[in-house]
Amino acid sequence: MAFDFSLSPELEEQRQRTAQFVATEVIPLEQHVFRDGMTDDLRLTLQRKAKDAGIFAPQAPAELGGGGFRFDEAGVLLEEAGYSLLGPLALNCAAPDEGNIHLLHQTGSAEQQEKYLRPLVAGDVRSCFSMTEPPPGAGSDPSALRTVARRTDGGWVVNGDKWLITGADGAAFSIVMARNVGDDAPEGATMFLVDADNPGFVVGEHLDTIDATGIGGHCRVTITDCFVPDDHVLGEPGRGFQSAQVRLAPARLTHCMRWLGAARRAHDIALERAVGRELFGSRLADLGMAQALIAENEVDLDAARAVIRHASWQIAEGSRSSEESSRAKVFVSEAVCRVVDRAVQLAGGMGTSESLVLGRIYRDIRSFRIYDGATEVHKMSLARRAAARAATRLEAGGSAVDGPLPRTGGAS
Amino acid sequence: MAFDFSLSPELEEQRQRTAQFVATEVIPLEQHVFRDGMTDDLRLTLQRKAKDAGIFAPQAPAELGGGGFRFDEAGVLLEEAGYSLLGPLALNCAAPDEGNIHLLHQTGSAEQQEKYLRPLVAGDVRSCFSMTEPPPGAGSDPSALRTVARRTDGGWVVNGDKWLITGADGAAFSIVMARNVGDDAPEGATMFLVDADNPGFVVGEHLDTIDATGIGGHCRVTITDCFVPDDHVLGEPGRGFQSAQVRLAPARLTHCMRWLGAARRAHDIALERAVGRELFGSRLADLGMAQALIAENEVDLDAARAVIRHASWQIAEGSRSSEESSRAKVFVSEAVCRVVDRAVQLAGGMGTSESLVLGRIYRDIRSFRIYDGATEVHKMSLARRAAARAATRLEAGGSAVDGPLPRTGGAS
Amino acid sequence: MAFDFSLSPELEEQRQRTAQFVATEVIPLEQHVFRDGMTDDLRLTLQRKAKDAGIFAPQAPAELGGGGFRFDEAGVLLEEAGYSLLGPLALNCAAPDEGNIHLLHQTGSAEQQEKYLRPLVAGDVRSCFSMTEPPPGAGSDPSALRTVARRTDGGWVVNGDKWLITGADGAAFSIVMARNVGDDAPEGATMFLVDADNPGFVVGEHLDTIDATGIGGHCRVTITDCFVPDDHVLGEPGRGFQSAQVRLAPARLTHCMRWLGAARRAHDIALERAVGRELFGSRLADLGMAQALIAENEVDLDAARAVIRHASWQIAEGSRSSEESSRAKVFVSEAVCRVVDRAVQLAGGMGTSESLVLGRIYRDIRSFRIYDGATEVHKMSLARRAAARAATRLEAGGSAVDGPLPRTGGAS
Amino acid sequence: MAFDFSLSPELEEQRQRTAQFVATEVIPLEQHVFRDGMTDDLRLTLQRKAKDAGIFAPQAPAELGGGGFRFDEAGVLLEEAGYSLLGPLALNCAAPDEGNIHLLHQTGSAEQQEKYLRPLVAGDVRSCFSMTEPPPGAGSDPSALRTVARRTDGGWVVNGDKWLITGADGAAFSIVMARNVGDDAPEGATMFLVDADNPGFVVGEHLDTIDATGIGGHCRVTITDCFVPDDHVLGEPGRGFQSAQVRLAPARLTHCMRWLGAARRAHDIALERAVGRELFGSRLADLGMAQALIAENEVDLDAARAVIRHASWQIAEGSRSSEESSRAKVFVSEAVCRVVDRAVQLAGGMGTSESLVLGRIYRDIRSFRIYDGATEVHKMSLARRAAARAATRLEAGGSAVDGPLPRTGGAS
Repeated sequence: MAFDFSLSPELEEQRQRTAQFVATEVIPLEQHVFRDGMTDDLRLTLQRKAKDAGIFAPQAPAELGGGGFRFDEAGVLLEEAGYSLLGPLALNCAAPDEGNIHLLHQTGSAEQQEKYLRPLVAGDVRSCFSMTEPPPGAGSDPSALRTVARRTDGGWVVNGDKWLITGADGAAFSIVMARNVGDDAPEGATMFLVDADNPGFVVGEHLDTIDATGIGGHCRVTITDCFVPDDHVLGEPGRGFQSAQVRLAPARLTHCMRWLGAARRAHDIALERAVGRELFGSRLADLGMAQALIAENEVDLDAARAVIRHASWQIAEGSRSSEESSRAKVFVSEAVCRVVDRAVQLAGGMGTSESLVLGRIYRDIRSFRIYDGATEVHKMSLARRAAARAATRLEAGGSAVDGPLPRTGGAS
Repeated sequence: MAFDFSLSPELEEQRQRTAQFVATEVIPLEQHVFRDGMTDDLRLTLQRKAKDAGIFAPQAPAELGGGGFRFDEAGVLLEEAGYSLLGPLALNCAAPDEGNIHLLHQTGSAEQQEKYLRPLVAGDVRSCFSMTEPPPGAGSDPSALRTVARRTDGGWVVNGDKWLITGADGAAFSIVMARNVGDDAPEGATMFLVDADNPGFVVGEHLDTIDATGIGGHCRVTITDCFVPDDHVLGEPGRGFQSAQVRLAPARLTHCMRWLGAARRAHDIALERAVGRELFGSRLADLGMAQALIAENEVDLDAARAVIRHASWQIAEGSRSSEESSRAKVFVSEAVCRVVDRAVQLAGGMGTSESLVLGRIYRDIRSFRIYDGATEVHKMSLARRAAARAATRLEAGGSAVDGPLPRTGGAS
Repeated sequence: MAFDFSLSPELEEQRQRTAQFVATEVIPLEQHVFRDGMTDDLRLTLQRKAKDAGIFAPQAPAELGGGGFRFDEAGVLLEEAGYSLLGPLALNCAAPDEGNIHLLHQTGSAEQQEKYLRPLVAGDVRSCFSMTEPPPGAGSDPSALRTVARRTDGGWVVNGDKWLITGADGAAFSIVMARNVGDDAPEGATMFLVDADNPGFVVGEHLDTIDATGIGGHCRVTITDCFVPDDHVLGEPGRGFQSAQVRLAPARLTHCMRWLGAARRAHDIALERAVGRELFGSRLADLGMAQALIAENEVDLDAARAVIRHASWQIAEGSRSSEESSRAKVFVSEAVCRVVDRAVQLAGGMGTSESLVLGRIYRDIRSFRIYDGATEVHKMSLARRAAARAATRLEAGGSAVDGPLPRTGGAS
Repeated sequence: MAFDFSLSPELEEQRQRTAQFVATEVIPLEQHVFRDGMTDDLRLTLQRKAKDAGIFAPQAPAELGGGGFRFDEAGVLLEEAGYSLLGPLALNCAAPDEGNIHLLHQTGSAEQQEKYLRPLVAGDVRSCFSMTEPPPGAGSDPSALRTVARRTDGGWVVNGDKWLITGADGAAFSIVMARNVGDDAPEGATMFLVDADNPGFVVGEHLDTIDATGIGGHCRVTITDCFVPDDHVLGEPGRGFQSAQVRLAPARLTHCMRWLGAARRAHDIALERAVGRELFGSRLADLGMAQALIAENEVDLDAARAVIRHASWQIAEGSRSSEESSRAKVFVSEAVCRVVDRAVQLAGGMGTSESLVLGRIYRDIRSFRIYDGATEVHKMSLARRAAARAATRLEAGGSAVDGPLPRTGGAS
């Protein structure tokens, strides 16, 4: 039994089908959407076409109408979807719905899955995930959560402010994260399924962010005396942070997969420009300075794919560790931003123009180094784990590191 | 059939056996060797122990006494061997012998294999590979080869100057690369098997290089009217550059594998120091600045391993392309040098001291970004291939890249 | 006579006055402008206030109503103006007018200065500089110029396409660069002063670019049988490329000065957030990961300022070399983009929001690494000059570099 | 009064004289010293020649036989001295003597200056500075000092271990840093002048470090019941840390000055190779990949010089802040290491060879990012100061940073 990095014929076929769909159905709509914005009508049209093409929701459970692919295999398809900024939405594998589908599938009751998950997989509704709060609330440090949930008759009352809630405008429901307070509630946080028409849940302004292409904005959400009945608790009360982990590790990787596709697109566009343009009496692509940008992109894209594939395989195999996904998130988010930046640079004046897609990818990809755990936060976590392992090794009495000599000071 | 990144139980067992051997038999000798140098006596002693431990020459053909592991699986073991700078020699998987073993196995005649390959695999002799020449000869650009071979009765006469020939001092034979000249020889280059006692082959001074730990030096070699009989031609006359490719692509990757082990070692040493040292009233490993160095190393090591595994799997599957190995060489050589540099920095004053191994790894690893194709040379090659692919795509009449809109200027 | 890096009391006073003006008059308008765009009405209001404050047009000739500061001293003031993205416009030291003022002052006839320069310095009108063309025309390589000028009775007829012409929409006139054709015109390029109401000069669509804050857009300009009388030639016919150099070297540096202010602003904002925010039980600014970002920004800002000051001093002293400004442009454009990127990262979710200014600076600053010569183009030029110097040194027979030994191969 | 970055005619003349001396007297000895090591005999010979050439000890007080140059002007000369790794010793402006000269001049009594400083400036003796201790003692964190000084009759008794004490072997005396203990001594640390023949002061083994070129090694020093009479206290008892600051800030900058020279040398050597070598049918210097390395070096060298000049001017003007020198140390140490690394890469196989000087510079320069405060330690300090300034600004009630809008949340 040796390593196997090959794509099965079925997966390769699905990959090509997805790429074809993105090229013929999605990309032609980009300029229109960049100018006028994405609408739910357009989203539904695209999703219908994706269903017809047999490529819809590759990562979602097959019994609910998704593709049912293993997590690592789905990564191949999400990369193709990400080749257009509109692709993931067209295939219903975009954030935040894709992560919510996973979370609902892992932790939702049968009734919750019927009511919320099924229409979400089908694309009949959109959803959002209300965790992030304005400072000093939950952000890179989820434990700073300030939204509170208090037990009441037959349910909970939730209060708090959220912001940067992606897709909130137009979402049919939100998964809301709140900290339990009061003696009659278990310690910890709880996740709630809150319908958009709940009067205690008000979606406010769209924040003006660097990125520009999603649907439903990055919104403020005000939660005021919001009653949520017991059967709308997602998972167990007090286990909200644990449930968040269920969502976070794979969600980080699906971001990596999609953005890898976008970065590859940026590189391809810049490369075509470099091949087609003359500069200083030479083809741009043949100038050494340009070659450096091109080759570094090729190397980064390849490494990012290898890292994603490895980390997603571990998750598919059942790993519960978040270390793999942290490492992958750090590497891939930094790498894809480098790739897009080099593509902009290579394309020059054209690279700075959004009408050529590059500028739009440049804007949209920036926050990926921040959300789902900023690079620096993952680094802190990775360093702590590495240090803990080293400490354990040292305490165990021996170090495989440098052998007996340096420690005894002997032979040297 | 899904991806499979798992190590088979046999491979994992062999990996542990190798790691154990390096820890108990190799590392304790490091300080001695760093001070007094490696000798063939010590090499033979170590290799005998490695044979007894059943871990000798993992990459070499089983029928000749090697481990017979697939190329991608051997990578796991070469990383473990590389954990000590002396490990690859102890296991007989060090450059240049490891590459010569591969080359002889692929291209040598039965007689050549019996005479040269068998004792080389066994570790009875050492060898060298005489390709690099002082400027303006062959280096990063092999086609600049200046050493010449001329037909004569029953063989060839070779003349030329070589330098930076690793391991030449004490090698039993050299594979010598020369350019055919004269009307009676096919165009191209030829590889010759030249015995060390050939009077036309003289090993000169050891060049004083940044690295310090190998055996047999990086030498000048003067080749003067060196007669080589026909049956000492390795492969076909005139096919020398093609044969060199047979050696180069896998040799790049085995360098990656070994240096990954050395970089991991450097990281482990620095990490133990960081865990054991107080600074500014805190454990060094808990300072954010140190955490950054630690985490970046964790991320780079992980990515380098994923890249190596993927590229070596492709070679094991029969890929003849050098593109994978070029990409891997660029990524891994740069990554491991970053890792070692950060380890030195993390260890501080200790990091600069060679007696703590770190300083020695720092010196030895530097040239890896230069030999077997400097980073920049691989980048040129990678960019050219990427540009050629893009050009083909464009000429085929359609670009999947940005769809019809930007090119027609239509909707925007 | 020792070095002197001190700010004269007058300059320091003007610096403070400028900073105060930006803080009290300009910054309060930012959110409004970011939302609704800049208008000429608002521009005129701001410029009137800047005149009243005695800080208007610090770089422009005093006899025309400008501040009359030396070029290196003006840099101190332009940095302060750049602290708000609106500041340079408020002080009438923004691109492209600032560069056109310089160019007109250096090369314009008395009549041209009266007609074009005086109202431009006063802010009564805006202007643009029509050089860049869509590929394969003039961009990083000005010699690729495709717009043509042909002699006719009493003047010239110009034809060509321009794009990315900053500020074209609403400009009263443009300086247009065209290549001479026809036997009756001297070889080379010519600069023309073209009035906006010239029927042959049509400003087209605003290109959709990554940046967002200027006035007058980055436009397409179509020049069709555009007649320009002889007295509207700026400088001598055929000397257009030389005149462009008069504009380019200082223009690069004024970009550096302004963007340094913007980068300092980004850093200050992020720093205030880091000081005011708790994360993981600590002040964000006290986490090592954040400290790294903060300190690297401090170091980069300081180095960028030193580089700008030195290069602008050389220009103020009369240097005609473009090498200093090339070096400064490469260093500063890369450094300020690093600074802004780190500021976004440090501010986290807040950093990605344009309402907090950071996101807007992030968008607006990106193209600075591309226009006025992309980083890579300046590097090519710098390398060529350095190589030429080294070649001259070598040809002169001796190299001070490594002494006689290595070249004779002697003692070593 | 404008800025002035010009070199006075006297300084420029001295610069050329120094460069000439290094080229003709110092560089020719390099290969010999690299092979056989530096001796005090050779040092004295070189220093005699430097005196004859009128360029000796440019930074030392004129009344003691030094050049008497202002600190910022001396930087110009130290850069020239650093052009050879042997130059600073030849001119007696090498570490650690150069720093000790400064410290003795600032804090020594008349008798101490007569006995220790005068012969040190003259080069009659060498000295060392015994501060660094093996972990967990004083290193990047001087306050961790473990060597202790206890009052006794007529003096002090010092005990402790030092390591990495540069130049200890052969030094006539050492400045020793120890922590006061006992009720009869003031709190804090004290600096002592300890003669090499003091029986309590024993110089031990040379540590094996990455660098290789100094004189007197990086040694262990064991201090055992070492009696030091009161008149050998340097400065006031208990004020040792303050005195260390007197030495540290300028010493950091003189390191920057000397290493800038060495980095320039590395660049010059690589550049000459690039100009003289053919690769892939082109001059190496004309390949874009090589141009990138060349230009980045040109930019880094220029920026490093501007930063040094500015920071040293501030010190020359009397600044007591260590912030300038911290910033400069971070920038310059990282920049010169980048430059040398690129030079090695550019020179290729030649770059890795020590006989060509490059490899030696590569080895010697690495620790500069660690000693005199590692990059990371300075970053912590710089971030703390920047954060303190921001906090003060915020507490003062208003922030010039982003105006009123974002804080009220109002208009946006």
